[in-house]
Amino acid sequence: MSAEVDEVEVLTSSDDDYGGVIVHINLPIDSTTFLSILRSSISNWKHQGKKGVWIKLPIHLANLVETLIKEGFWYHHAEPKYLMLVHWISDSPNTIPANATHRVGVGALVVNEKREVLAVQEKTGHFQGTGSWKFPTGVADQGEDICAAAVREVKEETGVDAEFVEVLAFRQSHMSFFDKSDLFFVCLLRPVSFDIQIQEIEIEAAKWMPFDEYAAQPFMEKYEIMRYINEIYLAKIDGHYSGFTPVATKSNFSNQKNNYFYLNAGGLKRCNSV
Amino acid sequence: MSAEVDEVEVLTSSDDDYGGVIVHINLPIDSTTFLSILRSSISNWKHQGKKGVWIKLPIHLANLVETLIKEGFWYHHAEPKYLMLVHWISDSPNTIPANATHRVGVGALVVNEKREVLAVQEKTGHFQGTGSWKFPTGVADQGEDICAAAVREVKEETGVDAEFVEVLAFRQSHMSFFDKSDLFFVCLLRPVSFDIQIQEIEIEAAKWMPFDEYAAQPFMEKYEIMRYINEIYLAKIDGHYSGFTPVATKSNFSNQKNNYFYLNAGGLKRCNSV
Repeated sequence: MSAEVDEVEVLTSSDDDYGGVIVHINLPIDSTTFLSILRSSISNWKHQGKKGVWIKLPIHLANLVETLIKEGFWYHHAEPKYLMLVHWISDSPNTIPANATHRVGVGALVVNEKREVLAVQEKTGHFQGTGSWKFPTGVADQGEDICAAAVREVKEETGVDAEFVEVLAFRQSHMSFFDKSDLFFVCLLRPVSFDIQIQEIEIEAAKWMPFDEYAAQPFMEKYEIMRYINEIYLAKIDGHYSGFTPVATKSNFSNQKNNYFYLNAGGLKRCNSV
Repeated sequence: MSAEVDEVEVLTSSDDDYGGVIVHINLPIDSTTFLSILRSSISNWKHQGKKGVWIKLPIHLANLVETLIKEGFWYHHAEPKYLMLVHWISDSPNTIPANATHRVGVGALVVNEKREVLAVQEKTGHFQGTGSWKFPTGVADQGEDICAAAVREVKEETGVDAEFVEVLAFRQSHMSFFDKSDLFFVCLLRPVSFDIQIQEIEIEAAKWMPFDEYAAQPFMEKYEIMRYINEIYLAKIDGHYSGFTPVATKSNFSNQKNNYFYLNAGGLKRCNSV
């Protein structure tokens, strides 16, 4: 038995978990050839009942962006080295997931047994040149846990090793860079080394500073959140304040590493009985 | 006095707060003309000592992406209708801020005075068709506060009006969509209306369900976090558990609306004395 068949080139794709396909392109291709293959591929995916089509386009294939947009794709997200485009080819309602909206910042309150705060002066940013001493802060890397980011920032900026204790509080702010938002987690850490070695690029100076002197700095008056944090610390050492501690929990949806669940462990029986 | 001068066209730009410039382009332009203007502009900005150049390119100008990449720009972030490109034109170290890394999800535990949980069955997603009753969940919109998102999701999915009480706990998970991470905030809400009207697109059914029956569902066994949340709720009604409540604080860095700072208010003297 034989039949006359045409073979058409289509883009190699893998299925996602939501009835869609993901295409990774890497080899250079001219936009005219690409357009023809793209159209065959879309026709093929429609025939298969696929819904969303994701194309991860590396930056060296920027020549294909215009073609994809003209064919109905739009931007989903981008990172320095790639652009993720998406197209909903089904008649069913569009269920494309939202893009990331938040950056995660951490601030680390590191206090030693003499009630001295690990304080830094920054070379850049809002407090530059003001003589203000503040706790180390930074931005969590992609994929980094909040508790790990706090420990890393303290080590990088001051050379001090510290253990994560808890999240004391957090602030959500909007429009902090372009249209995006920030979640800033104020963390309490316990130092396990004490010698200071500053990171020369970002940090002007660092020192252990008596808490009362730290908290009495004039700039605190202007920053309601800084005053809250000072009150929280005083309530903490008086034993009245509980923040959220991370507990490792299994991820049920993939074979990724454990996730941290942050909760007030002191309020839970099972955590207290440990 | 006269001099022979050439006028060159440059892109209209505004300064950012970090020694860079932001360019908004909107009118259609062919890529050859654009390249010439872009080169004059960059030369001009370099001369002025500018550092970062941001170009916000609406999707209808996708014809210019390739030109920008060839001139040394790279992707910073993208939203459905625009692509943000950036280029560091200074010799000083690159201080381009990181892109957003996290999506913010909320789960709303709404319990009435009869200790009944507002529970839903979803039409899509992981629990579809399993008969599992869970609390309403959703994703915070761009610029939306966590406390507002929880109230909105409950209203949208069930028609129930509720007041935000506190964040009971939160989970950070990675690689949850492409390379991006999730922060999922478990919130306690107090219902102020009780009639249920479900949102037909997402929700199969909703009801007030006795807490013990809700917590005894077999699927809970598989989800460590769900068991933690049940324990937290029981500790809460016993008066042993404190989460984080939002307090409105002034933003010092811009004329934007207030930010919420989430903290264990019960542990702070000033909050208790109110």
